[in-house]
Amino acid sequence: VLIPDDLETPAVVVDAGLLERNLSRMADAAAAAGVALRPHAKTHKCLEIAQRQLAHGASGLTVATLAEAEAFAAAGCPSVFIAYPFWAASGDRPERVKELRTRTDLRIGVDSPSAAAALATAFPGARVMIEVDSGGHRSGVLPDDVGALATWCKSLGLEIVGAFTHPGHSYGSKETVRDTRTDEEFRAALVRGVEAAVADEHAALEAAGAAVAEITGTKPELSGGSSPTASARISSPLTEVRPGTYVFGDRQQMYLSGLSADDVALIVAARVVSAPRPGEVVLDAGSKALTSDRAGWLTGHGMIVEDPEATIASLSEEHAVVTGVTAPLKVGDLVRVVPNHVCPVVNLTSSLTVVRDGLVTGRWPVVARR
Amino acid sequence: VLIPDDLETPAVVVDAGLLERNLSRMADAAAAAGVALRPHAKTHKCLEIAQRQLAHGASGLTVATLAEAEAFAAAGCPSVFIAYPFWAASGDRPERVKELRTRTDLRIGVDSPSAAAALATAFPGARVMIEVDSGGHRSGVLPDDVGALATWCKSLGLEIVGAFTHPGHSYGSKETVRDTRTDEEFRAALVRGVEAAVADEHAALEAAGAAVAEITGTKPELSGGSSPTASARISSPLTEVRPGTYVFGDRQQMYLSGLSADDVALIVAARVVSAPRPGEVVLDAGSKALTSDRAGWLTGHGMIVEDPEATIASLSEEHAVVTGVTAPLKVGDLVRVVPNHVCPVVNLTSSLTVVRDGLVTGRWPVVARR
Repeated sequence: VLIPDDLETPAVVVDAGLLERNLSRMADAAAAAGVALRPHAKTHKCLEIAQRQLAHGASGLTVATLAEAEAFAAAGCPSVFIAYPFWAASGDRPERVKELRTRTDLRIGVDSPSAAAALATAFPGARVMIEVDSGGHRSGVLPDDVGALATWCKSLGLEIVGAFTHPGHSYGSKETVRDTRTDEEFRAALVRGVEAAVADEHAALEAAGAAVAEITGTKPELSGGSSPTASARISSPLTEVRPGTYVFGDRQQMYLSGLSADDVALIVAARVVSAPRPGEVVLDAGSKALTSDRAGWLTGHGMIVEDPEATIASLSEEHAVVTGVTAPLKVGDLVRVVPNHVCPVVNLTSSLTVVRDGLVTGRWPVVARR
Repeated sequence: VLIPDDLETPAVVVDAGLLERNLSRMADAAAAAGVALRPHAKTHKCLEIAQRQLAHGASGLTVATLAEAEAFAAAGCPSVFIAYPFWAASGDRPERVKELRTRTDLRIGVDSPSAAAALATAFPGARVMIEVDSGGHRSGVLPDDVGALATWCKSLGLEIVGAFTHPGHSYGSKETVRDTRTDEEFRAALVRGVEAAVADEHAALEAAGAAVAEITGTKPELSGGSSPTASARISSPLTEVRPGTYVFGDRQQMYLSGLSADDVALIVAARVVSAPRPGEVVLDAGSKALTSDRAGWLTGHGMIVEDPEATIASLSEEHAVVTGVTAPLKVGDLVRVVPNHVCPVVNLTSSLTVVRDGLVTGRWPVVARR
């Protein structure tokens, strides 16, 4: 990502050419496998990028919130899946869900009898996807419990489209620690973790699919995918994948999805504002720009392209203290930071600065922030 | 903070009565010490709260960014201090700083010769405050180096108003770990850390003040304060304090500033959206609502008022997985979360929901987000 010198900082900058390459790669992989691609739009929250994804053949979009669903449906997205255990009963949500359904093919995640009942009351006949826990242990029912929930959903008059899972354990866990292994050994262990998560994901969806098919008598949609698992393997029994982060990549994905620094299409442009101690500088990108979000196994809060071995040792809201600096950085210098986790970074800015060959070509608004 | 049942969640909710009490307490403490109160507005980013602070006698506001300075100056704040090692040379900043100076008594932090030179070029005669490092080891020069920087600033024609510091080490450090101590012992150790930071803060400012006075021949402003140190002691040599978090309080301040849960004026209202395993629930407030920001010595990502011993064990963007649940929480229930660190939480929402006696009385926009 090449950037001009006079950027107002911090700025979230997207390289349109690299973005396009990332979109193509995933679209091609899904097409080659004959699996629908329904990218998770929480990563970009950006109508311009959603349009590019649909142009590349995406079947629709995945979102996490009602506001995201509304924004993308209003922009013409033909099918939106709220891949979340959505609670439909509060405030004006019943009206909003009904309105949304007139605009798009709406699918909603369920993982509990009570949320299913609330949804059926708010919107009779809603199309649902049953969430199954494939090992991430966040939300979702166990594969053995899919049949009971599907039976309940059917009795409520909900239309069961299929089942979905998020193999969150592809990102490692609290037990994934860097310890004393070499970088190469550690990366290999992470990749083995992704492969194990793929196997878990496919097994859970296969079991869930059999249970759903028994209730509905139709072939269910089986929707999987995180960026690491989708980058590793897209194949049967999946009928759909929902990667999000692949559009930009980030430092986590450089470990998990085999990306190189040259594949990352988004950086945070920051400026050196202080050089208070030998070997240290302070950047004007703190937790309100880079986010504190970080896999426990990553050291530091991002990678500085101009000095990859330096460590962003601590963040406060508008400061990043960088240690181990070896590049000749001085106050006023512009640097590029590959963030650890790109999704919350995008959520911290109202617009993305778009560059092509180092020149700013536009600004894309980030929609549906709170 | 009492809240109505049908809130759209997640929501950042402020209790106007508790807020008022917190504003009064700090204003009274500063007034009693004869020290100016210049609250840090990064915490609330809210014109309505700034107006209340000024009505309580604040001398002006502190901010971290140019956009924050512009927003509060445009709203009529008579004096704004950018307490940050501000880089004045990039993009349209020279014009913006000049425009801002026509609206308010503008003071700008400096901690390097090059940033001072850039500022003097962009805005000749700018009023500056020299940042001194009192032990937080973020930005700022050492007390011994204040004289040289002040001499340089004077030679550039800058007006040196005084010196400032942020005793960030009052929040503990990477070495502050919970270990095997009882809660009481651990809290006492944190409070001793705050007291040590107060001593460091006062000593650094005293030394910086002597150095500045020698160059300017006038009595310098000596500006200190974080919420923990300002809650612990406001006294000479300080002439000004800049606490921010005190307006709301948060879980960190419950350890550091002697606040009880009843003093905290802001909570994140969240809903139980899944109850996938015995003793666990999932809330709809993830890192995009609660922030991943967390002192290393805090366990979990916030305190649930309805179940204070439960642990918010992990956050993803729109999910919080809560373990050790003992309250009878079920899907659809509303809970209140005291966030670990309130400043980034406010920065994650476009408006604060204001309640009084459990009823929503208004919405206050959050300004100057990126």
